[in-house]
Formats: sequence, C-alpha cells, structure tokens
Amino acid sequence: MMAWKRLIRFIADDGSIHFGDAIVPKAEANIGKLADEGSLYACVIDTSGSIDIFSANTELTNEVLHVQQLLAPLTRRQVPIIRCIGLNYIKHIQEGGRTPPPYPTLFIKPSMSLAEYGEVITISEFAQETCDYEGELIVVIGQDGKDIPKEHALDYVAGYTAGNDISCRAWQSDPKFVGGAPQWCFSKGLDKYAPIGPAILSQEVIEDAGELILQTRVNGELRQDSNTNDLLFDIPTLISFLSKGTTLEKGSLIMTGTPSGVGMGKKPPVYLKDRDLVEVYIEKIGTLRNTISFG
Amino acid sequence: MMAWKRLIRFIADDGSIHFGDAIVPKAEANIGKLADEGSLYACVIDTSGSIDIFSANTELTNEVLHVQQLLAPLTRRQVPIIRCIGLNYIKHIQEGGRTPPPYPTLFIKPSMSLAEYGEVITISEFAQETCDYEGELIVVIGQDGKDIPKEHALDYVAGYTAGNDISCRAWQSDPKFVGGAPQWCFSKGLDKYAPIGPAILSQEVIEDAGELILQTRVNGELRQDSNTNDLLFDIPTLISFLSKGTTLEKGSLIMTGTPSGVGMGKKPPVYLKDRDLVEVYIEKIGTLRNTISFG
Repeated sequence: MMAWKRLIRFIADDGSIHFGDAIVPKAEANIGKLADEGSLYACVIDTSGSIDIFSANTELTNEVLHVQQLLAPLTRRQVPIIRCIGLNYIKHIQEGGRTPPPYPTLFIKPSMSLAEYGEVITISEFAQETCDYEGELIVVIGQDGKDIPKEHALDYVAGYTAGNDISCRAWQSDPKFVGGAPQWCFSKGLDKYAPIGPAILSQEVIEDAGELILQTRVNGELRQDSNTNDLLFDIPTLISFLSKGTTLEKGSLIMTGTPSGVGMGKKPPVYLKDRDLVEVYIEKIGTLRNTISFG
Repeated sequence: MMAWKRLIRFIADDGSIHFGDAIVPKAEANIGKLADEGSLYACVIDTSGSIDIFSANTELTNEVLHVQQLLAPLTRRQVPIIRCIGLNYIKHIQEGGRTPPPYPTLFIKPSMSLAEYGEVITISEFAQETCDYEGELIVVIGQDGKDIPKEHALDYVAGYTAGNDISCRAWQSDPKFVGGAPQWCFSKGLDKYAPIGPAILSQEVIEDAGELILQTRVNGELRQDSNTNDLLFDIPTLISFLSKGTTLEKGSLIMTGTPSGVGMGKKPPVYLKDRDLVEVYIEKIGTLRNTISFG
C-alpha cells in the first residue's frame, strides 16, 4: 500500500516543486477548487532517493506546504505511455453515428501529450477549426503487469484521476484528411492534448471507480453529464484486455473513454474557441481546468 | 555529427553488453550476416558519462571487441515511442483492398514492443492464427523537433535501421474483433512485436534512404521484394507531417510502412507458423532475423 491517498504535484510558495498528499477538510473536497481558492495544503512526499511514487516504500514527510499552483500529478518521465479507449459510452457511440465495438478500441497518445493542471493549451493553427474536448476518467497503473486476469486487475491500479482527451475532429474523421477510416493517434496525440489532474486518488479513497459522476463544462456551461456506471467496458475488463500479450508499465495511463455531449455531437457541431475554459469534474477526484489558446 | 557510422549494440565474448561502431570490410557488408558468421568486430563507444548515443559528444574508444551476439541497436529506455505508418506502399494498399490515404496514416507501438536482433518472438495463443510479418525501413530521430519543415527534416535523423512490424491480422481487421473500423494499436502493439536491427546506419553511410532495396524472406522464401523508392510519402514528408504540433523526441522511431507481399495479401492468406524464421533485408543496412515461436 502506498503512503499517499490524494497524490498531487505542485509549486510551493517559494517556487519549489513537490509531490504531496493533499490535505482536505473532508473526504469529498474538490481538490482543484481548493487549489484555485488558494486554500490547499499538502504533506510533502519524500522523493529524495527515488522518484518512484508508486512504491510501497514511498514516505510522507512531516513537512506541510501551501499549494501555490497545482501541476499534473505525474511528470512526462513517469508516464511511459497513455492508452486511450475510443468508444466506451453508449450515448457517445451513438452521437458519433457508430455502433458499439465487440471489444475495447485502443489508440495511443505519446507521453509528450501530457499537460499540467491549469495549463493554457495552445492549439496549432491547422487544428483550430475543429478542436473538441472529451472528459474522461483515467486509470493510473501502479505496477507492471501482463496477461492480467479480470479478478486481479485492480491490484495493478495506483489510483484514478481526471483527463481531457483533446481532439482535432477534422484530422480524426474528415475523409479529406484521413481517407477511408477514422484516425486517432495523430488527431489526438499532439503536444499537450492530454491534461490530467488535479490529483490521483488511491483505491483507499475511491473504492469503486465504476460509480462516479463525470461532468464537463465549457465556460461554465454543462456539456457532458454522465456517470462511469455507463461504461460499456468496465475498468477490470479494460485492464485485462489491454494486458493481453502486452506489458502495462507502471505509470502508464488508461483513458477510459468519454460520454456523450462532445462538441462534435451537437447539431451543428460546436467546437472550442480561443480562450475557452474547459473543466472536467469527476466525483471524489475534483475538477481539472484548462484554457484553450489559439496562440 | 555523431562519432559512429554503423551503430550496433552487442554482447561481447565475456558476456558484457556494449554499444559499438561496427567494423566492416566494405561499405555495403551485411552486418547481420557477418554477426551470424561470427566474424563481426566493433569499436566500442564510450557511454560511461551518459547513454545519449545521439550526442555529437559521443566518442569511440580504442577498444575493439568481437561481437558474440547482436542485440537491438537501441534499448527500450532510449526509445520513447514508435510511430508507424499504416499505408505507404501503393501495392500493399491494393493487396489490403484499400485506397491510398490523402495524408500519412499514423498508429503507435509502445517502446515495450521492441525486440532484439535475433530474439525468438513468442506469440500469445490468442494471436497465433493470423500472425503476419511486415518488413520496414525505420527512421531513427536524433534530436527533438517540432513543426519541422520538409527541407530541414533530415537534420533530425540519426540514421536508419530495419524492422518487422509484426501484426495480428484478426485483431487488426476482422469485424468479429474490431467492429466497424480497422484497429492497429492493439493488434500490432503487443510485447516484442517490433524487432529492430541489425544496425543504425548514419546518413554518412546512407545518403539517400529513398532508394534502398527492401526484401522479406520467410524460411528463405522471398515474400516481399520492393524498394523504398516506391514509398507513397517519402521520409522528409513523414517527418514534417508527424511533427505538426507534435514533438518528435530524440530516440523515437518512425516505421515507414511495408510493401506488398505480406501473408494477409496472399489468396488464400498464409500466416506465420511456429518456428518460422523471418528475415528483413534492407540494402546497406543488412538483415534483421527473428524466429517466431508459439511457446
């Protein structure tokens, strides 16, 4: 068992960067909101000997620091790869005009696509016209595993966080760009297209990740309003499937798919604009906030 | 400019592992063949201070060692990610019954899919029925780059090697498994599905990677017989496209696609069997050899 329950990475008042276990007044406090209000504190985690934040030997120190600014709870170096599930909520599959797949649909984002909590995400000019959000629950793998049976899948989970699978829809599905079949790796794998945070909640805090409210707001307007109990393939099924003949490495992420309510699904589609604020809220995890910039 | 021209990684006679610059009697010697015959030697590269094999500061030592066994020219740690182009030779597109895409088609393999030169590759039981080879030219990125113009693309290339994009066809395209659209990341991303080698040839040796014979043999039988001059999207085009809004990291690989002649394209399809030897030969680079095992 790891020492932390609510893993954050943050800038302290003196500008130094730390990993910490967020201190919250009550179990369901919204860590992102507390940080934005300037009222978040954390127990510093000792990473002097190693930066393996997933080890059972990780220790909390006695030092408590004020959180000046939240970052992504993991660095790019700690995340070897990001596996993403393309179609995993029935209503989202329908809004895209597709049919439910018989098995999980995998695509991959490079670790370079990670972005910080609160970071302004600059969208390249060629991708600005059809920029869209996808609020998602993320599973953080805590130890290497391969051919993992469904009944042991949760043993490999360090915790859960929230993410935004930013997507350029034209390069995902417009035949003018992709030809005959949808393409995910390029259109969703650009730098900073995977902000995560605000915290990784351990399984001590989130005992059942299959029953969490998930909401996405754009400039405060509710766009996605769902619950992880609507997942077509649940988390143990995803871990077991993705590990078939494949090592899921410690620190790798699984983005579990997005519910209905994306901009592409509206008639007519409504895409993100310069300076839009996207907030992904997941119950018990809190709110991930990022502003979109057209540079 | 890097110190090496023909980068190999190998086990020496005393069991120690080194990076080296292969010593060949003539410029076009087949490094893989020399190694298999036990007659390959290399100048050892000094990696004591750093393992950044791409740095201009990398130095050759005076030590010359006999190559007992070739490995992949890079370790998994040195390869952040493997980008692969799905459809890039006209005849291969036709044998799959598809149409040429307007832009390169990207999918990603995790670095865990790397396998050594000569390694026996064990195929999981669920993937044994439709296991196929794809011989490919690989571009090795030598320095980080983003938004790279085509005319500067080759400045970012450390060199070229050969690879086999091993593929499980059922999980790539059988609607029973993938639903409505082909899936590449899972069916081609399993552990060890990307053997590479025998060497990385610098641009000093390979001045024009757009004019290289590429042949794949199974148990000695010629199956793929093409030339990189048949690439739909050439190497500068691929680098420029893939770096749009995306950092191509030092050490990352680009598998440039496979020509016609894969097992799936035969009528009826002929897939790999237990103990089949697959050899990918690329002019000036040499022959990559791997045996398939059904465990």
